[in-house]
Amino acid sequence: MILYYTPGTCALGAMALLRHAERPFQLCHVPRDARMGPIFRTVNPHGHVPALVTDDDRVLWENSAVLIHIAQHSPAGLMPAAGSAAEDELNVWLSYLGSEFHAAFYPVFKPQLFLRDDSLHDDLRRDSLKNVRRQLAYIDVHLEDNRFVMGDTFGILDPYLTAMARWGERFFDYEREFPNLGRYLERMRAEPSIAFALAIENGDEQPTVDGGYAGHTDLVPRDV
Amino acid sequence: MILYYTPGTCALGAMALLRHAERPFQLCHVPRDARMGPIFRTVNPHGHVPALVTDDDRVLWENSAVLIHIAQHSPAGLMPAAGSAAEDELNVWLSYLGSEFHAAFYPVFKPQLFLRDDSLHDDLRRDSLKNVRRQLAYIDVHLEDNRFVMGDTFGILDPYLTAMARWGERFFDYEREFPNLGRYLERMRAEPSIAFALAIENGDEQPTVDGGYAGHTDLVPRDV
Repeated sequence: MILYYTPGTCALGAMALLRHAERPFQLCHVPRDARMGPIFRTVNPHGHVPALVTDDDRVLWENSAVLIHIAQHSPAGLMPAAGSAAEDELNVWLSYLGSEFHAAFYPVFKPQLFLRDDSLHDDLRRDSLKNVRRQLAYIDVHLEDNRFVMGDTFGILDPYLTAMARWGERFFDYEREFPNLGRYLERMRAEPSIAFALAIENGDEQPTVDGGYAGHTDLVPRDV
Repeated sequence: MILYYTPGTCALGAMALLRHAERPFQLCHVPRDARMGPIFRTVNPHGHVPALVTDDDRVLWENSAVLIHIAQHSPAGLMPAAGSAAEDELNVWLSYLGSEFHAAFYPVFKPQLFLRDDSLHDDLRRDSLKNVRRQLAYIDVHLEDNRFVMGDTFGILDPYLTAMARWGERFFDYEREFPNLGRYLERMRAEPSIAFALAIENGDEQPTVDGGYAGHTDLVPRDV
């Protein structure tokens, strides 16, 4: 598999899950400005990361589809049985994190999608952060009784939540306002797979010797 | 199963899929203003529809989780095989529709989540509709070569897309601007399962005699 990522984005989740899944994979770094450019759009027409080239050379995008594909094709038993209550719970969380939780940050990071007039962007950010706070509070309450998103075991959802929940640290004091989430992020950053992905984001090319990481590949147009 | 819905929302998708799946189900009408009220929040703490009570008395929310559960527990073979390319494609679409597509409408319908100052809401709506247009254009191109979202067969995604794509008809002339989508919606409204759900939204209590529809149940607090 090849994972396309941009540092600082929610693609961190897929990168960590690939490392955790112990399958061979390569990474392709997509610079922030290149996401909407002509080359990367031959990979994903929407211009978003993560995107994943599967072993049979299909391209997937959308985080939850990418994460489920990685989990299903991993020997590590990451995917609940089809039709089980645990799969339902996974699907509820994947959808919540991908839609309501993620979307709460859109106006904060991409105000130009909402208002053309730059002079209103500060108001938009300030007022929209109330919705971010509401989502963080929901997560914080959940983590009071749960060591991981789904109970006692590190799973698909943890690298994904970590990738996005870190964004709120710029705006809120987690220790004071969301202490369960703050402690959770501290634990998650110490998980080997997430530490791996964070090291990659920081430009460390050989962060581990074990696992399936097979280095970077160049960003080139995809022949379709 | 019991499906909680509010007319005009994306819960139409789950309602139509239940009808299509030919399984016994009841409906519970949640008035628009009751979604964030104390009773419905004992069902779904987020206050969103659709919510689904499963046959083993669990509650699911988030459209994609609800739709997948219905498909998996239907005799109609609606769900692709676990781990198949078709399942990947389904997951990509479910996530895209639930996040980027749906979220494009948030500032149009819920401007107060973004800006407290009412006097700026018209600007917010006008500028945000550009993003809605971009999403509708993407769908329109896709439907040029596809009778249904996933090719030749009515499936999980069609009632879901129908439920949301109708929202844009208030703002855009589909016949002129998105003709493939316009024709698609016309076909979808004629599908028996979607016609059923639209009739329910319009207050028709006995829209069909066949299928699994077992009437409405009252909105009461859920004991947890």
